[in-house]
Amino acid sequence: MAQNYSHNVLKRFLHYRQCLIQFQRHGFRKVFSYSLGKEAGASAEQVRKDFSLFGIKGSRRGGYDIDYLLNSINDIFKQNSERLVILVGIGNIGQALINYEGFKENNIHIVAGFDLDPSKYIKRFAIPVYPPDRIPEIVRQYGVKTAIIAVPEISGQVICDLLLSAGIKAILNFSPILLKVPDDVIVNYVNLRNELETLFFYL
Amino acid sequence: MAQNYSHNVLKRFLHYRQCLIQFQRHGFRKVFSYSLGKEAGASAEQVRKDFSLFGIKGSRRGGYDIDYLLNSINDIFKQNSERLVILVGIGNIGQALINYEGFKENNIHIVAGFDLDPSKYIKRFAIPVYPPDRIPEIVRQYGVKTAIIAVPEISGQVICDLLLSAGIKAILNFSPILLKVPDDVIVNYVNLRNELETLFFYL
Repeated sequence: MAQNYSHNVLKRFLHYRQCLIQFQRHGFRKVFSYSLGKEAGASAEQVRKDFSLFGIKGSRRGGYDIDYLLNSINDIFKQNSERLVILVGIGNIGQALINYEGFKENNIHIVAGFDLDPSKYIKRFAIPVYPPDRIPEIVRQYGVKTAIIAVPEISGQVICDLLLSAGIKAILNFSPILLKVPDDVIVNYVNLRNELETLFFYL
Repeated sequence: MAQNYSHNVLKRFLHYRQCLIQFQRHGFRKVFSYSLGKEAGASAEQVRKDFSLFGIKGSRRGGYDIDYLLNSINDIFKQNSERLVILVGIGNIGQALINYEGFKENNIHIVAGFDLDPSKYIKRFAIPVYPPDRIPEIVRQYGVKTAIIAVPEISGQVICDLLLSAGIKAILNFSPILLKVPDDVIVNYVNLRNELETLFFYL
């Protein structure tokens, strides 16, 4: 839970970025903390505090330069270097991720996929697909540290353990289970069912 | 932002549920707040406070009954009634959602899909697919209040406005933009790129 505070800051930064891109599209070049905060649902103080945390500076009179903010945020997320990922599980979600434009457009490359089903090795996906026992070899070859798990619940932890032993340090998990990982490994969860269920609560 | 606190509580409940299901699989029938908290990454006090918020009771000696907890959580999320959704955008993500087992298994039914591409109306998906201008009619027919947006960025707000005018009150948005909605409409965001990017930050 120690990373929680920092994780919320990061989420806000990604949120700021979405707002900034929209401002930029509308032709704006400068933004004040209160207008960015208003758009992003945060206070002006929060915006200034978040930016100063990463040494991002604005002027009281002129506000923040939007180009400068976007570059700074991209630096935080290392967007200017190539970001490599492997994908385990080439089912519905996995196949959608292979073709997901939001990755390709942003220097995120899925270098290889893994699946237990041999028919997946022959099918022509946009990435090569291998059996899971080749994970250590491919991870080493590409020096990749990040993996996406999109396998059914029952194989989630087995695949996770295999990834950890191959040296993976960051996991995006679509499998609906809580993964057991050591403290130096970070896991983000996307649970599509949970996202829908909180909506039904409010209705 | 007013709903934020409550939203975090709901997320914790869904997290508790995942843990409880795992406990149950391991043969446990009772659980104490500290063991559930430990598994879910929350304090025992937090667990007790969350449960008491919804009138869920345990005993100091025997802990909480796991069956009772799971039923109570399912009640909170209205899992025992049929939960209907429409889906706009039958691209990669949309098609994955149509076949997503996590919805089907949990009484969540996508009743219809919508897409601008006429070839999608002919293809045999597991749900009927219509042009977006039929959204108001289908929403009325099924009395559905919840929608998933899985369209490209550029059409996100247009589709959102169409959904709102048809009476939709809750949206799960996969489109990478912030939607403008009135205060009585709730939006959950799933931004797959952002989920991956926070991982790259930590590496």
